[in-house]
Amino acid sequence: MMIDTPAVLIDRERLTANISRMAAHAGAHEIALRPHVKTHKIIEIAQMQVDAGARGITCATIGEAEIFAGAGFTDIFIAYPLYLTDHAVQRLNAIPGEISIGVDSVEMAQATAGLREDIKALIEVDSGHRRSGVTATASELSQIREALGSRYAGVFTFPGHSYGPGNGEQAAADELQALNNSVQRLAGGLTSGGSSPSAQFTDAIDEMRPGVYVFNDSQQITSGACTEKQVAMTVLSTVVSRNVSDRRIILDAGSKILSTDKPAWIDGNGFVLGNPEARISALSEHHATIFWPDKVLLPVIGEQLNIVPNHACNVINLVDEVYVREADGTFRTWKVVARGRNN
Amino acid sequence: MMIDTPAVLIDRERLTANISRMAAHAGAHEIALRPHVKTHKIIEIAQMQVDAGARGITCATIGEAEIFAGAGFTDIFIAYPLYLTDHAVQRLNAIPGEISIGVDSVEMAQATAGLREDIKALIEVDSGHRRSGVTATASELSQIREALGSRYAGVFTFPGHSYGPGNGEQAAADELQALNNSVQRLAGGLTSGGSSPSAQFTDAIDEMRPGVYVFNDSQQITSGACTEKQVAMTVLSTVVSRNVSDRRIILDAGSKILSTDKPAWIDGNGFVLGNPEARISALSEHHATIFWPDKVLLPVIGEQLNIVPNHACNVINLVDEVYVREADGTFRTWKVVARGRNN
Repeated sequence: MMIDTPAVLIDRERLTANISRMAAHAGAHEIALRPHVKTHKIIEIAQMQVDAGARGITCATIGEAEIFAGAGFTDIFIAYPLYLTDHAVQRLNAIPGEISIGVDSVEMAQATAGLREDIKALIEVDSGHRRSGVTATASELSQIREALGSRYAGVFTFPGHSYGPGNGEQAAADELQALNNSVQRLAGGLTSGGSSPSAQFTDAIDEMRPGVYVFNDSQQITSGACTEKQVAMTVLSTVVSRNVSDRRIILDAGSKILSTDKPAWIDGNGFVLGNPEARISALSEHHATIFWPDKVLLPVIGEQLNIVPNHACNVINLVDEVYVREADGTFRTWKVVARGRNN
Repeated sequence: MMIDTPAVLIDRERLTANISRMAAHAGAHEIALRPHVKTHKIIEIAQMQVDAGARGITCATIGEAEIFAGAGFTDIFIAYPLYLTDHAVQRLNAIPGEISIGVDSVEMAQATAGLREDIKALIEVDSGHRRSGVTATASELSQIREALGSRYAGVFTFPGHSYGPGNGEQAAADELQALNNSVQRLAGGLTSGGSSPSAQFTDAIDEMRPGVYVFNDSQQITSGACTEKQVAMTVLSTVVSRNVSDRRIILDAGSKILSTDKPAWIDGNGFVLGNPEARISALSEHHATIFWPDKVLLPVIGEQLNIVPNHACNVINLVDEVYVREADGTFRTWKVVARGRNN
């Protein structure tokens, strides 16, 4: 099969292994798994996760939930402090199945009154990431609980400070404390947490919602969540230009397929699979610049390389379909059905 | 009109003014304008540029050229050193109208033999950006010229080192030197250059290909190419969470609509229009974190803010349509028809 580059490739064996590994880990710790589908936005992968035992799925937006509910998924948590306009309420009320949403303010707890009675709400608490979510000790926590009434289902957090070398264990400890302190104050409720880098340390909560583990990427490797051999998604690219005296090559995979996600603790904008020293030093929209390692033969024009991106979630959100390489070497394509569903 | 956030908004008056200003500047310097449509990927905007006097358009990929040729544009330069697979050659040969492509190696100059006779090629030279392109003094330049034969049309460069505070003038000087030295060595040919930050200093070349000037963004402001009042594209977002004691607000515009483009010389991941001190300090996929300036009233949950992104081109590539605000306050939508056309 001839693939026009740049293109997103998925290795089915590695994908299956990643899904099984996390399911086994969650099972061994008696934690329900509710994977975040914003990472892949693909029906086939969500189905593999549910088949492996996931309790349900997590979405980031109403639009993602609409797509996955339309494909038959019936237990969806939108882990986001939605602003409930009339239109948002209408859209949520029209989604079939078990739906729950996030809330982190008294105003929005009150606004849930317009929602269908069976739509549940979880209160977001901040476990140290300093993004959305109330602090577990704030008086607002009880006020939100009260405003939610019978709609209250529990608390959730995203321990996003797990990203970065060696951060996972402390983030998991912070998460455990924030979630358990919160339900203790609120006299019960589900505890939902989890991120891919902290998952291996997650314990004693009810469910977890990692996302990136299905694919893995440069951030997960550097955070200590996986090895390079567990990377299931790459960007196939072609060498389109080279400067031999500079040992510089240019690939046709730019920021419009790799995205530019690059935290300070990551070197480069992705690297060549199997050649971790070949880091992308600069990204334009359709060019990746690599100053090629001295000890490795300089690729020729037309050579194809597999790039491990820094952040898989934003790569998937740039393409309408992906190529899946089966164990026998054949390819199929899957649609990224929830691509661009930002609201 | 109710707009679900996050959404890309275009101010029609500012867009028109930006297009007119660049057309007038090019006209005054007797430089033909061939704007890069990868910035907007929208037929209506390309038409406004041609109506304002553009000679033709520039695309980054064959896929973009297919879309714009299909909409009736007949003079298209794909300013990219394409790798000419059989499929790429087939696709190029099927595009109607005047087509030209970039070449920066002897291998690809030879491979152009498979192209339709009327498809022209320009040789890419590096004017200091250190990306693709041969150096103007390299022996390869003449070899590529020779291999192209009658297909040779001239030389082009992208002075991308124009990005950054105060870099435009030197980049324009480098561009002028690289292009003019090259055509002198090659005994003639078109000189094509230009970028939005260097455009005000561009002179004595045949055509220029700026892109971002139609919208402008935080990078263009910081590079000195425009003022905040010339920003024609913003991302409308809603405050979904706030922490009053931290003076922290969370917007629903994350990296999946703002992208994460952030060179070291830019503060933050975008800022609030009209409030340049309100910088986005962190971006998640669906959250923007702003520590709000002390002297400005903290926005409430549900408040809508217009964000000026760092890099307009990657924002457009994340959405399927944009909202255009007309002078009378009404809105229309335009399709981003070439979104995701990465090859």
